[in-house]
Amino acid sequence: MTIERRTLLRGMTALPVAAGLSALPAVGAPAVSSPVVEAAAVEDVPAGFPEPNRHLQLYAVQLPDDNGETRLGYGHDPDNASYPGPTIEMLEGECIAITLHNEVPRATLEALRTDEETPLGVSLHAHGVRYTHESDGTVHSGSWVAPGESRTYLWFARPPARKRGIPGTAGYWWYHDHVVGTPHGTGGLKSGLFGALIVRRNSDPLPDRTYVTAFGDLMTINLRRYPNTDTYDPADPKPGPTSLVARQGERVEFVCIALGDEMHTWHLHGHNWADTRTGVVEDVPWAAWVPIIDNKTIGPGDSFGFQVIAGDLSGPGDWMLHCHMQRHSDHGMVTHFHVLDRQGRPWNHDHSAAAQTSTAQASTAQAHQH
Amino acid sequence: MTIERRTLLRGMTALPVAAGLSALPAVGAPAVSSPVVEAAAVEDVPAGFPEPNRHLQLYAVQLPDDNGETRLGYGHDPDNASYPGPTIEMLEGECIAITLHNEVPRATLEALRTDEETPLGVSLHAHGVRYTHESDGTVHSGSWVAPGESRTYLWFARPPARKRGIPGTAGYWWYHDHVVGTPHGTGGLKSGLFGALIVRRNSDPLPDRTYVTAFGDLMTINLRRYPNTDTYDPADPKPGPTSLVARQGERVEFVCIALGDEMHTWHLHGHNWADTRTGVVEDVPWAAWVPIIDNKTIGPGDSFGFQVIAGDLSGPGDWMLHCHMQRHSDHGMVTHFHVLDRQGRPWNHDHSAAAQTSTAQASTAQAHQH
Amino acid sequence: MTIERRTLLRGMTALPVAAGLSALPAVGAPAVSSPVVEAAAVEDVPAGFPEPNRHLQLYAVQLPDDNGETRLGYGHDPDNASYPGPTIEMLEGECIAITLHNEVPRATLEALRTDEETPLGVSLHAHGVRYTHESDGTVHSGSWVAPGESRTYLWFARPPARKRGIPGTAGYWWYHDHVVGTPHGTGGLKSGLFGALIVRRNSDPLPDRTYVTAFGDLMTINLRRYPNTDTYDPADPKPGPTSLVARQGERVEFVCIALGDEMHTWHLHGHNWADTRTGVVEDVPWAAWVPIIDNKTIGPGDSFGFQVIAGDLSGPGDWMLHCHMQRHSDHGMVTHFHVLDRQGRPWNHDHSAAAQTSTAQASTAQAHQH
Repeated sequence: MTIERRTLLRGMTALPVAAGLSALPAVGAPAVSSPVVEAAAVEDVPAGFPEPNRHLQLYAVQLPDDNGETRLGYGHDPDNASYPGPTIEMLEGECIAITLHNEVPRATLEALRTDEETPLGVSLHAHGVRYTHESDGTVHSGSWVAPGESRTYLWFARPPARKRGIPGTAGYWWYHDHVVGTPHGTGGLKSGLFGALIVRRNSDPLPDRTYVTAFGDLMTINLRRYPNTDTYDPADPKPGPTSLVARQGERVEFVCIALGDEMHTWHLHGHNWADTRTGVVEDVPWAAWVPIIDNKTIGPGDSFGFQVIAGDLSGPGDWMLHCHMQRHSDHGMVTHFHVLDRQGRPWNHDHSAAAQTSTAQASTAQAHQH
Repeated sequence: MTIERRTLLRGMTALPVAAGLSALPAVGAPAVSSPVVEAAAVEDVPAGFPEPNRHLQLYAVQLPDDNGETRLGYGHDPDNASYPGPTIEMLEGECIAITLHNEVPRATLEALRTDEETPLGVSLHAHGVRYTHESDGTVHSGSWVAPGESRTYLWFARPPARKRGIPGTAGYWWYHDHVVGTPHGTGGLKSGLFGALIVRRNSDPLPDRTYVTAFGDLMTINLRRYPNTDTYDPADPKPGPTSLVARQGERVEFVCIALGDEMHTWHLHGHNWADTRTGVVEDVPWAAWVPIIDNKTIGPGDSFGFQVIAGDLSGPGDWMLHCHMQRHSDHGMVTHFHVLDRQGRPWNHDHSAAAQTSTAQASTAQAHQH
Repeated sequence: MTIERRTLLRGMTALPVAAGLSALPAVGAPAVSSPVVEAAAVEDVPAGFPEPNRHLQLYAVQLPDDNGETRLGYGHDPDNASYPGPTIEMLEGECIAITLHNEVPRATLEALRTDEETPLGVSLHAHGVRYTHESDGTVHSGSWVAPGESRTYLWFARPPARKRGIPGTAGYWWYHDHVVGTPHGTGGLKSGLFGALIVRRNSDPLPDRTYVTAFGDLMTINLRRYPNTDTYDPADPKPGPTSLVARQGERVEFVCIALGDEMHTWHLHGHNWADTRTGVVEDVPWAAWVPIIDNKTIGPGDSFGFQVIAGDLSGPGDWMLHCHMQRHSDHGMVTHFHVLDRQGRPWNHDHSAAAQTSTAQASTAQAHQH
């Protein structure tokens, strides 16, 4: 692999994230270092699965309403739940155990239920990884969790077995509830019970930062509409789930998820990427064939991810990240990728205004869209 | 090719399907062994086409209504027509002749017609393969069939000519009417006049079973909604078009088609595949680049296919196969892939219940979704 | 590269288009030879950008209404504006300057405005290439043009830097307004302010002809519905933006763009292509993996392109090119790719009628769909 591997898998070692590269806090980075309560002691490890080497705790809890909408979230402890939930990061080949604790009140689950025969519970269904029927997270398999109860799921990031054509598991996936509201978890998804799942291959380049963008119904990114998608403050440019910040030159990873009922297209200004598993290409002959894109159709259940060098030649800026369906972006399905300069200073609005040929409407033009 | 090639192209030889692997009948397997009435004696073989080496008969007939909806089907004889029609399998390089007999009553075609200037007929339009204008199956080319008439179509699975950048024909395609109702066959498609067309390359791995899933409007898979999509009986687990069954370890191929007006996303639980022409990867350097997926956006006219090892590590189970658009799956756009154990025994509901941590709602949870 | 490279980059040399291959005028060919007014003298070339080697002029003007719909267009001079605008062709590695002159009347921009705080101006936003915030074409960056003003944009077709995983820029892109009507240019897009941008890699095969098809809302191709999409006259088969003509054997390139709010699927009869960056494959081992398609889902903001050999084995014909969503194609989202024979003669309707098995409705069948 010719791409620089900046650190070992961060959360899995004691190394600081992107050590020496940036003084920015790593809020946007993967949360794989999340609570490992105990070495997994899971009975009945399925045939062909290795013993799980980590055991995570995940709590499903109710969060404050958002404009009258019920909000639920997953969190590694009950007090830090969020939507999206914590990004879970695995290495291909690894098996992990995750104990889900359902702390969502029964009355809330009842209110979200639109299909009377759906049981009142919460579950964990993962894309991409291998799991047996006991960890499917569906109603008919019984692999869900009643209020006040808990259940342990096993996910195996199965390595490739290419002699049989089996590709492995490395990819940008997601996990979500499959039980709340309907047997497809429609109530859980629209309330916030989902998160990103990244499975890395040993040779993959590691990003300095990871940002998750789940495109959903009602013109939402991570269930929010602009300006709530973008709480970035140039006077204090801290990274966070709604403040997508990086310094120019940092390797930034976007995980893109779609959920709900609608189609979307994911577009980022000022950057492009290869339509490969990681968005990058190496210096190999077959690189010539790979489509290069900056806009990608994504339908519910799909997920993809890619890595870019922040502001590569395009430089610092508040780069729009939006659904390219006009009705969606016009109604708030937009945020920005804030690329600071190499010293960590925000893009300079005043400089831009000075460079502007057309100044007639400069004051209006400088106003961010609303 | 490192992937085991279990048999030669099945229908084209006298070998039983997946000999020695399974006692399951091969109902779900490709139907390439369908009636070869005669060696093709087709006049006017187009320039550059080889002589057709097989001659299939295809009948378009009316089938019993389904809840008041007109149903038409293609069949290799008039008494076995179905929707989807029979899967047609070709080898890349092969040219075949197909004689279409239109046995659909004129009055039925008239009732389905929404565009007054569209003629009353049925046709055969294929994706992927080469055909001349005489085999296009469209109104303006005159290549359609009036009631009581017949017409012979020629399809050539053109091999690659890579010096000119021509990729060949291998792929998971489909065929359909292009004349009933409107000049785009809208009435034919919604009534059932479509089927899968598989073109294999000589080196491709062969599946033990093939299942076709056409995602359509009104939350339908193969024009059916759950529970009609899934007539599987664990007491008698026979494979069939609405009973997607395999033993753990079998190589199973899914052909995924979309038709109508709506977008869909095709998702299967417990399995994933490579986003390549066949869904498999070999042990080659460029395998590292290929996206691995378990959910794929599919729009009308699109088709793709892939092969998986049934229950590979995920084991036996009634694995959900559904559109991941929540409204679609909640309203019946779902079926299951029933993976039996290696001895052919269905997934054990009782065992699952015993393994369940959360037992509070076990009886409800065990009920299949409805 | 084994694929024959018929000419050098045409517009950038003095060579005639596809010299010796065809007497057809090259109306459909790339317009890279468009007005180079002067060597670029652009101040403040951004860090890492080369000096621009060409300087194009682009005028945004109002065109005559189409059935009461406002129409705007880009043109290399104010008198030849069109929708789509001129195709701009670059070589990977090249940097160009484009001066946009906004000649659209202020009152027209006001009438198109649906978001009151959006300024009255026109802009140029490009996909795929690198540009700084000063060339982003957005409201918040101030990089737009008031009526009567002009502004110079810089686009850099950044070459690959694969040691860092950066794929380069080669691809089938598009450019469009991002300011008219709303901060996402919704009014500009629906009025016609868009065009194709092709970035070629040195080793790419060159087409004999290029056709642009932008799929949009209201069942439109390039904002037109059938029969306005197809003004081809077999008595005088001249190529043009609404007359997609080629001789059998010519290498033809399609650029496919989607814009607006809706999903579409792009389908061409009688041809297929590889799902690679250019639609072609070389004679290399990894060719076996590449999906081959003849129908592709495309959502707003997406663009792709591919090259085919016109009528390769399928021969001459009026090959349908349409959205495969039935409602869309039934309502006019269709045109034809008119493949003439090698002598330049149109496809023979009479010949087809004679070859028809089903003659009962021949006269109706011969009528083109309407």
